[in-house]
Amino acid sequence: MNYPGGIKTKKIVKTNKNISYKNRGMNLEDDLNSTNNYYKDKGIAYIYKKPTPIKLVKVDYKKGKIEEAYFDSPSTTDYNGIYKGYYIDFEAKETENIKGFPLINIHKHQIEHIRNINKENGICFLIVRFTKYNKTYLLESKDFIDYLDNNKKSVIPISYFDEKGYNIKDKFIPRVDYLEIINNILEVRYGKTKES
Amino acid sequence: MNYPGGIKTKKIVKTNKNISYKNRGMNLEDDLNSTNNYYKDKGIAYIYKKPTPIKLVKVDYKKGKIEEAYFDSPSTTDYNGIYKGYYIDFEAKETENIKGFPLINIHKHQIEHIRNINKENGICFLIVRFTKYNKTYLLESKDFIDYLDNNKKSVIPISYFDEKGYNIKDKFIPRVDYLEIINNILEVRYGKTKES
Repeated sequence: MNYPGGIKTKKIVKTNKNISYKNRGMNLEDDLNSTNNYYKDKGIAYIYKKPTPIKLVKVDYKKGKIEEAYFDSPSTTDYNGIYKGYYIDFEAKETENIKGFPLINIHKHQIEHIRNINKENGICFLIVRFTKYNKTYLLESKDFIDYLDNNKKSVIPISYFDEKGYNIKDKFIPRVDYLEIINNILEVRYGKTKES
Repeated sequence: MNYPGGIKTKKIVKTNKNISYKNRGMNLEDDLNSTNNYYKDKGIAYIYKKPTPIKLVKVDYKKGKIEEAYFDSPSTTDYNGIYKGYYIDFEAKETENIKGFPLINIHKHQIEHIRNINKENGICFLIVRFTKYNKTYLLESKDFIDYLDNNKKSVIPISYFDEKGYNIKDKFIPRVDYLEIINNILEVRYGKTKES
């Protein structure tokens, strides 16, 4: 592929009424990327954000240049990888909503995927940050599905995250240390976690 | 995102002197996609091809249209997912080479990734199709790494695939039934495979 010199990638800013990327410090995606880099550098876990799916329309293959393309909706979650030999799979979202997490943020195909991974015994969860409170939660797929199957509301209230989820405390390094919580979940699930 | 009506995605044809997508029937990528869809539909495994990484340069977010972007090199393998609770990770390549598999087909970062997943006890492997012989092999990451660490040649000879790898027989449904071989590998590794 050709990489013409001097091209700088613009900072990509997503806008969506339910997802905000403007906030005090770094956004959740940046925090998770730096956390996953930390895990990788330390040889703790290998978890990656999947590239954004794109529908290619016009490509100049000689130049390796995409001239027309469109964003595609994801059919799976954004992050997956391996930790202590276990399959890890999660979706991460920020919301400015002050009452809870609007379910419109998770696509139908993603919900189907989360159900599949949950059934297959993967370590599957959501990481949701409520930007107005600067609080970040981890909610296991089983509790997420339980909510979907037993409620008709389009928003998961914050109280549900408080009751069923885990609060991920802000840290300096790594920023969002979600594997600390996964260790607890593995202990509850398997008694003692297998070593990598 | 907007999807202006009437746009048809061109069939994307990759060209590379070592990778060929012209061949008798379907190419390896299509075969693997249909195989993975079969596994998913039957609830056997959830394994996906990751989207191609793209470097965005110019985007019209109002229209959801990418106006300038470039292909980026992958830092991980193309496929990953879960089977019977195990983490599955692999790279798939076709080659027209008649002597073996040219290592130039696997990027440096991908090799590093394969080493990491292997160390972390993931089920990691290559699927390589030699188009001139219409033969498809699965080579476990440990044997791939072993070759890299003990040889200075830039091509893994077909004889090495015959000796260390597994030949994946062509089938009608699913096309490339690699999980049949993974079952053997799991039995060798864990004695009895855990049930999902």
